[in-house]
Amino acid sequence: MSVIAVGSMAFDTIETPFGKVDRIVGGAATYAAYAASNFVQPILAVSIVGNDFPEQEMVELRRRGVSLEGVEIVPNKKSFFWSGKYHMDMNTRDTLITDLNVMADFNPVIPDSYQDAEFLMLGNTVPALQMSVLRQMKRKPRLTILDTMNFWIESTPDDLRQTISMVDVLMVNDAEARQLTGEYSIVKASHKILHMGPKFLIVKKGEHGALLFHENHVFFAPALPLEEVFDPTGAGDTFAGGFIGYLAKTKDISFENMKTAIIMGSAMASFCVEKFGPQRLKEITTKDIDTRVQQFVELVQFDIDLV
Amino acid sequence: MSVIAVGSMAFDTIETPFGKVDRIVGGAATYAAYAASNFVQPILAVSIVGNDFPEQEMVELRRRGVSLEGVEIVPNKKSFFWSGKYHMDMNTRDTLITDLNVMADFNPVIPDSYQDAEFLMLGNTVPALQMSVLRQMKRKPRLTILDTMNFWIESTPDDLRQTISMVDVLMVNDAEARQLTGEYSIVKASHKILHMGPKFLIVKKGEHGALLFHENHVFFAPALPLEEVFDPTGAGDTFAGGFIGYLAKTKDISFENMKTAIIMGSAMASFCVEKFGPQRLKEITTKDIDTRVQQFVELVQFDIDLV
Repeated sequence: MSVIAVGSMAFDTIETPFGKVDRIVGGAATYAAYAASNFVQPILAVSIVGNDFPEQEMVELRRRGVSLEGVEIVPNKKSFFWSGKYHMDMNTRDTLITDLNVMADFNPVIPDSYQDAEFLMLGNTVPALQMSVLRQMKRKPRLTILDTMNFWIESTPDDLRQTISMVDVLMVNDAEARQLTGEYSIVKASHKILHMGPKFLIVKKGEHGALLFHENHVFFAPALPLEEVFDPTGAGDTFAGGFIGYLAKTKDISFENMKTAIIMGSAMASFCVEKFGPQRLKEITTKDIDTRVQQFVELVQFDIDLV
Repeated sequence: MSVIAVGSMAFDTIETPFGKVDRIVGGAATYAAYAASNFVQPILAVSIVGNDFPEQEMVELRRRGVSLEGVEIVPNKKSFFWSGKYHMDMNTRDTLITDLNVMADFNPVIPDSYQDAEFLMLGNTVPALQMSVLRQMKRKPRLTILDTMNFWIESTPDDLRQTISMVDVLMVNDAEARQLTGEYSIVKASHKILHMGPKFLIVKKGEHGALLFHENHVFFAPALPLEEVFDPTGAGDTFAGGFIGYLAKTKDISFENMKTAIIMGSAMASFCVEKFGPQRLKEITTKDIDTRVQQFVELVQFDIDLV
């Protein structure tokens, strides 16, 4: 069961309290693809890069079952570049530089060979482009997940609303859920968002875990308490990749199975933050993932005797 | 199995985004006693009040199995008074007024009739007084829990360190755990604190839940996502009361049982914040608690198939 992952493939310069790295490979599609490929292959990437994107990274992605047929390579331009600095709490960051470069011309085209994919992850980008991808799908995917950000909530609210109405799962952070609805309470915000169209809402809270809302149900997945979070960059995209990868692998999009999928996403994100960039995602084995998931089980399981 | 609860009994004036209440009954011992009495009785209160503390509240507490023999009533003085205003996020607040009144003379005396208690909750107060209580116990209680706050970490660090070394469970919030250890990572902070003496550490994170650390184990209890948090005042003390009340009821102080106790504490705290002051704690039934605990089970339970 294949997964389409639409999003940036880029370079990041990142500073955290633990150090600084210069122009390492990043981007939503990169993180999501590395994470999802642990569960299912192929992952069908849709992105755009410049002539500077490393051939070695392309080889590594292909080796992990990531198809790059949908990745446009622009010969005379540079790849998207982002530079940011994290604060001590690692939940907040300042963007220092955003060089759109090739992203300014991003016009995602779904190759014919991708049309059979039943799972679609729309990484954060211009809502009109996300809509364009949805419209290019000849058959509605079994499950479509949408990520977005504050910038689009402010600058293209109507396009965003329309895009949101077309997907099955919206995935935002707590601040974005508040901004999108004008509700401070995440529970109230969830009611409003579930009325906008999506059947499921995932609210990411970084080191404080994630919530899954569906009808009147709610599920909470903790983040694993870690000694050090070296670099949170890409954790949200990695989470999304683990989530959709597990759903595609199990071919089960019920609320019950989504709970497990969120734990899988959280486990993948917990690896991601242990090193700068997607490095850690390239090192881990299936056994590492199983061990990590078992830590999540131990983290939250308890016996209950009612009062 | 009785529980001693040492702490303030007081008046609070509270402003939240949802309204304002004037001089309602509060205090760490009050909240802890109301919460714990749902699990075990008697609760043996140790506190000090002025001549203004309502007789009606005393009657209500006694009716719920709270002994007030250890509560000194000072005839010519006023009860402790605190006034605060919560910010929109409800996790932060400004203290507007602190009138110590009788608390300035607080010198807790453990009545002889309390000496058989096997569970001791030391609510937040001067560390030297907490130590005095520990020394008054003729037989070491089976379990002693200590709460404290930033003020004592700054002003009486040596006394606080000594008190911490004498207890079984330290209960602080995330900011206090960081301040106490100089470690930003809560996991690293937990290692340092468990080296100070306590066998267990509970880190409260408000709406983000609570962590329990013991040796190399960690357990996470979520907070229940609520439509509205009307008033967080007393939620930490209510959590402590539910936690120790459940342990006393079950007479089991293992790490496994403490996990369940933390869920019980979280359930009690989730009621506390639904109304101003301890009001909601006086309304709930055993059935309400069972239903609420079941919501926690549903909130975190998931099935796992390894990758």
